[in-house]
Amino acid sequence: MTYCVGMLLDTGLVFLSDSRTNAGVDQISSFRKVTVFEKPGDRVMVLLSSGNLAISQALVNVLQEQMAGFVPGKDQPPNLNTAVNMFEAARCVGDALREVHKRDAAALEEHKIEFNASFIFGGQIGSELPRLFHVYAAGNFIEATFDTPYFQIGESKYGKPIIDRVVTRSTSLAEAAKCALISMDSTIRSNLSVGAPLDLVCIRRDALKVMSHISMDAEHEYFRMIRKRWSESLRHAFHELPDPEWLRSS
Amino acid sequence: MTYCVGMLLDTGLVFLSDSRTNAGVDQISSFRKVTVFEKPGDRVMVLLSSGNLAISQALVNVLQEQMAGFVPGKDQPPNLNTAVNMFEAARCVGDALREVHKRDAAALEEHKIEFNASFIFGGQIGSELPRLFHVYAAGNFIEATFDTPYFQIGESKYGKPIIDRVVTRSTSLAEAAKCALISMDSTIRSNLSVGAPLDLVCIRRDALKVMSHISMDAEHEYFRMIRKRWSESLRHAFHELPDPEWLRSS
Repeated sequence: MTYCVGMLLDTGLVFLSDSRTNAGVDQISSFRKVTVFEKPGDRVMVLLSSGNLAISQALVNVLQEQMAGFVPGKDQPPNLNTAVNMFEAARCVGDALREVHKRDAAALEEHKIEFNASFIFGGQIGSELPRLFHVYAAGNFIEATFDTPYFQIGESKYGKPIIDRVVTRSTSLAEAAKCALISMDSTIRSNLSVGAPLDLVCIRRDALKVMSHISMDAEHEYFRMIRKRWSESLRHAFHELPDPEWLRSS
Repeated sequence: MTYCVGMLLDTGLVFLSDSRTNAGVDQISSFRKVTVFEKPGDRVMVLLSSGNLAISQALVNVLQEQMAGFVPGKDQPPNLNTAVNMFEAARCVGDALREVHKRDAAALEEHKIEFNASFIFGGQIGSELPRLFHVYAAGNFIEATFDTPYFQIGESKYGKPIIDRVVTRSTSLAEAAKCALISMDSTIRSNLSVGAPLDLVCIRRDALKVMSHISMDAEHEYFRMIRKRWSESLRHAFHELPDPEWLRSS
C-alpha cells in the first residue's frame, strides 16, 4: 500500500509520501514514490505515485525519455520541459500513462492484474500560479480548487479527517507540512503496509525550484516529536472533554 | 453506508451505530441498525448490522421467530433466549444468517447482488463475563480479546485512529461512549452516507439489562457539544505543535 498527499496553498505546494511497497504482507520493500522534475528558475514539478510499482516506474521513464529525446526546432509533442503551463504538463503525464497502458495493459490482464495506478502531480511553470492535479489510471485528471486544496492517493481514509479540519489555501507551508506528517502518522498507526522512510517536498510559490526535500526515517527527530506530542495532545484533549452526564461514574 | 462500533470493557459494553441507509446518493433513508435482545436479570444482547438491509432485517426476524417458536421440553436447537453462553448465542446468529443465505443468496446472485452483511454482536448471559463478537456474512465469527477490545463494521477507517489511541479494556463506559461519539463524528464529517440519528446503547457488567439506550439526532446537546469542542481541541492541539524548523516562517 501507499499513502501520499499533495497540498496546494497560497504560498506554494507540499508533497508527502511514504515509501512502502508490498506484494502481500510477506514481501515488503522500500521504494521512493516521489519524482522531482526541476529546471530551476523556469519550472518545478513533483509526481507522487501509488498503485502498481511497475506502471509508476514505466511512467517516469517514459516522461524522462521524452525530455531526453527532445530535439529543438523539430515538431514534437510537448514534454515536461517544454509544456507551457501545468495543465499541458498534466496532459503529458496522462498521455505518457496511456502509452504505458497501451504497452502493458493487455499483458497484465492476461495475468488478471488490474492496470492500477494513481498520481498526484503539481508544480509551477513560469509566472503561472502553482497548480495541483490528481491523475487517474485512464490518464484523465482533476485539478485542486479553492474548496478542495489537497489530494490523497493510496490509503487515504485514516489521515483524511485531520486535513479536513485544519488545511485551507491560506495555511502556511510549515503548518501544511506539519499536518501532512500528522496525517501520515495516523495512517502508519492503522495500516501496516504504509511506512517510513517518508519523503517531504516543499515548493515555495514563485521560487521555481524545490525549497526543501527531506527524507525522514522513523527516527527522524521532528517526526518522532510530532508523533509523540500529537498522541499526548489527543489523549489530553479527549480526557478534557466532559463525559456524557447520563453515564458519569460509569 | 453504515458505521457501527462495539466496545468490550472491564465494566461492560458500549454500542454505537448511525442509521443511514443508501442505495446510491439519491436514495438515502434512515433505518435503525441496532436490535436489543433482553431478558432482564438473565441476559442482554445487542446486535449491530451493516451491509444489505434486507439481509439484516431477515436475520433479526429469523432470530425472533426462533425465540417465539420455542416450546419448552421439546428438543430444539438453542435460540437467543435459551443459549447457555454468548458463544452459543453468537452461533445462533451465525446459523440464522446461514438460513437467510440459503433462502436468498441464489436469487441475489441472479441480480448480481453480493450477499453482503456484517454484524457486531455482544452481551452477557448469567454469570459469564460480557463478550463481543464480529459475525461475518458466512456466519462465522471472531471474538474481541484483551488486545483488541472493539469491533467496527461499515465505514470504519475514518473513525479508527481515535479508538486505537484511547480505548483499552480499562476505559470507563462513559469515556468509551465519548470516544465512540468522537469516532462517529470523524466518520460523519468524511462520509456523506453515514449520518444521524445515532443509537448509543450501554450495558453495565452484571446488570443483565440495558443501562441506557439513547437516540441522538444531529441536534442532541451532548453530541453537538462533543463535535464542537473536539474540533476546537484538535485545532488548538495542532497549532500548539511546533512547526518544522526548516520551514519556519513559510
